[in-house]
Amino acid sequence: MLIIGELINTSRKAIREAVETRNAGYIQEVACQQAAAGANYLDVNCGNMVGQEIEIMSWLVDTVQQAVDTPLCIDSPDEAALRTGLSLLKPGYKPMVNSISAEEKRYNAVIPLVKEFAAKIVALCIEDAGMPATAEDRLRIATNLVEALEKDGVAQDDIYLDPLIKPLSTNDKHGREVLDAIRLIKERFPAVHFTCGLSNISYGLPNRAVLNRLFVVQTMTAGMDGYILNPTDKAMMGLVYASRALLGQDKYCTQFLKAHRKGLYE
Amino acid sequence: MLIIGELINTSRKAIREAVETRNAGYIQEVACQQAAAGANYLDVNCGNMVGQEIEIMSWLVDTVQQAVDTPLCIDSPDEAALRTGLSLLKPGYKPMVNSISAEEKRYNAVIPLVKEFAAKIVALCIEDAGMPATAEDRLRIATNLVEALEKDGVAQDDIYLDPLIKPLSTNDKHGREVLDAIRLIKERFPAVHFTCGLSNISYGLPNRAVLNRLFVVQTMTAGMDGYILNPTDKAMMGLVYASRALLGQDKYCTQFLKAHRKGLYE
Repeated sequence: MLIIGELINTSRKAIREAVETRNAGYIQEVACQQAAAGANYLDVNCGNMVGQEIEIMSWLVDTVQQAVDTPLCIDSPDEAALRTGLSLLKPGYKPMVNSISAEEKRYNAVIPLVKEFAAKIVALCIEDAGMPATAEDRLRIATNLVEALEKDGVAQDDIYLDPLIKPLSTNDKHGREVLDAIRLIKERFPAVHFTCGLSNISYGLPNRAVLNRLFVVQTMTAGMDGYILNPTDKAMMGLVYASRALLGQDKYCTQFLKAHRKGLYE
Repeated sequence: MLIIGELINTSRKAIREAVETRNAGYIQEVACQQAAAGANYLDVNCGNMVGQEIEIMSWLVDTVQQAVDTPLCIDSPDEAALRTGLSLLKPGYKPMVNSISAEEKRYNAVIPLVKEFAAKIVALCIEDAGMPATAEDRLRIATNLVEALEKDGVAQDDIYLDPLIKPLSTNDKHGREVLDAIRLIKERFPAVHFTCGLSNISYGLPNRAVLNRLFVVQTMTAGMDGYILNPTDKAMMGLVYASRALLGQDKYCTQFLKAHRKGLYE
């Protein structure tokens, strides 16, 4: 299970303000909290800081690395910003790039960075023809992506497929198709990993937190093994630990019992 | 999805007291509450009233039927008590018998009742050699049960297999084996249904309600479509409705939105 902490993102108001005032202390606090809560990677995203993204990416990566040793996931739509972030990383681990897709332009822009930095890669199931609708669409795009990445020397173990979650409110099969896609892709490529953001599933519906949390449990049951989420959300992390125990992924339920003692279920 | 309300059971203290004082009003209140909360069947179980089970089964069935039209599930280890309950049921629906198993003596005692009353049957994955350990054990016992029941004229659509849930605290693969078993059995017999009680999974662990609720979500994701539970537990029923929506089993999310308006997520 790979938890990528999502909080260091300038689309969040508090982070944007801290960035604008170069409040390193706040950024470092958020980094430490996520690391302490069990994040395996910390996502760093300032893609909405138009015209300043490279400078800010550089400041954010330095700032976070002064506070924690947790591996970073460099997240940007812009390959120059990705390169900036990746170039600054401390050695000693495989960095993560967020993200590549099966769109030709995007693929060709990002693959040289993945190779140069020997990075793990988040691979979105999007192709030039557009977004996937069905489980079969996702399997087809995932197959193209995995085969292309392998040809470019990326091991399946370094690939984190994002099946692309669309709102249940626009089509009541949007959850089902993702669950079926995970199963199909896992059957085809057992060594490949998954990751996704969750909040899309509940867009436009009430009780969004309930739906997001349940969709973690459902996607884990289908075989998903990575998430971009807020690791300081105790209820969410409690579900992750309890789900892992129930799925037989937690020897002697050790992590679940530890989470209990830390008060994650209070 | 079939929800069997579990509350009318003399192993529950309040029910036992109401039975001992022949407090029909309390029994009827519990029956009405379960029916109003959406139970499709109400389980009636007085198996621990040794020496009085037949008399009490008769009183309970009459009492419940005076209050609600919800179908009943007659639950007993004793075939004479099963017969008593079944004989008293109002016409107009298929009664449910809880339960048969692959144990020869049990099978032979219960199958005549299933045939005579054209009943739906809860079929436990237990055989004379004992309880199942693995998913494959459950598939083997389920196969024997379904084939025997079909030979005896029971349609797959009337069979509710209970895969038998054992505590996670005694073996950390006990949840995983059940999830795999549901998938394997569903592949082999797509028309067969499932049901189970949940509380065994969490026996001996902390945060039992969390584990029980998550295991509902996980087993639903694997294909389970029936539960014996407390339908007046709003949090549990909320999970069932939200899970169904996410699984694509709730057209336009209608039931989920209805549950929201009824305050199940407050």
